[in-house]
Amino acid sequence: MDRSAFHSLSYGMYIVATGTAERRNGQICNTVFQVTSEPATIAISINRLNYTYECLGSAGSFSVSVLEEDTPMTFIGRFGFKSGRDIDKFEGTAFRTCSSGCPVVLEHATSFIECRIRESFDCGTHALFLGEVEDAGVLTQARPMTYAYYHMVKKGRSPDRAPTFIGK
Amino acid sequence: MDRSAFHSLSYGMYIVATGTAERRNGQICNTVFQVTSEPATIAISINRLNYTYECLGSAGSFSVSVLEEDTPMTFIGRFGFKSGRDIDKFEGTAFRTCSSGCPVVLEHATSFIECRIRESFDCGTHALFLGEVEDAGVLTQARPMTYAYYHMVKKGRSPDRAPTFIGK
Repeated sequence: MDRSAFHSLSYGMYIVATGTAERRNGQICNTVFQVTSEPATIAISINRLNYTYECLGSAGSFSVSVLEEDTPMTFIGRFGFKSGRDIDKFEGTAFRTCSSGCPVVLEHATSFIECRIRESFDCGTHALFLGEVEDAGVLTQARPMTYAYYHMVKKGRSPDRAPTFIGK
Repeated sequence: MDRSAFHSLSYGMYIVATGTAERRNGQICNTVFQVTSEPATIAISINRLNYTYECLGSAGSFSVSVLEEDTPMTFIGRFGFKSGRDIDKFEGTAFRTCSSGCPVVLEHATSFIECRIRESFDCGTHALFLGEVEDAGVLTQARPMTYAYYHMVKKGRSPDRAPTFIGK
């Protein structure tokens, strides 16, 4: 099996955020996709060791912020390579809070989607969460960052808890 | 809700194929993503009205062929806008057959992934199939076609059974 074949799968770069004012988190996620059109539902894959997974368990909603191509690596580092158990990632970050308490990151986001969690599926190390879209909006006309752009142009890497991690 | 926000989600362009020598099908799919790294598992979202869905039900495997950027629209039309109930899509198409009987399209494919179906999840109009990767390989160094490229450069559209269909 040549695992480098997985590199040819295409993804975007997103911040998935969830929780309430008391306990919330956001993380970089590349596995976000639409599953149905009517009603509009979105699936995300989250590592069960992540703080986001813990917060999703007690939350009713999650949000997806689509990162623009020009998102700085420092911003990606804050949400992608640090744990919400250690720092409050939202401190100093532009975001708003939905009526459910779920944060929506607005900084470097070209669009956003808010979902009510409908179901979750156990997939081993990760869980798939299915959310029905409650609100969505376009914030800027900036080009969305793709996972390929992140790797090839920004020279970014994938943390070992990512679904797409490929070990050495 | 501004559904055009969904346009900023990034996908690739794939052919998902499944079945046996007696009953098989392949279709264009943009919702393919890796869910876990260990073991490597892939999720696909398939419309329950599609012939592919029927074939998946009796098959043990599916394959994913990653389409190259230069894939002609006629080829995409054959697999994306025609039904395997009416034509044998594999006639005249370069493909090979796995030991399970599952076809793997090789034409215009830059890489392929073969999966044994582990589980399926009902998501309303669509179903998510989770497959454990049994084999994967890189066929060419061509750039994979993204869904954005298909829409913007190739001027392609989405059929109404696609997860990402947006009605007028």
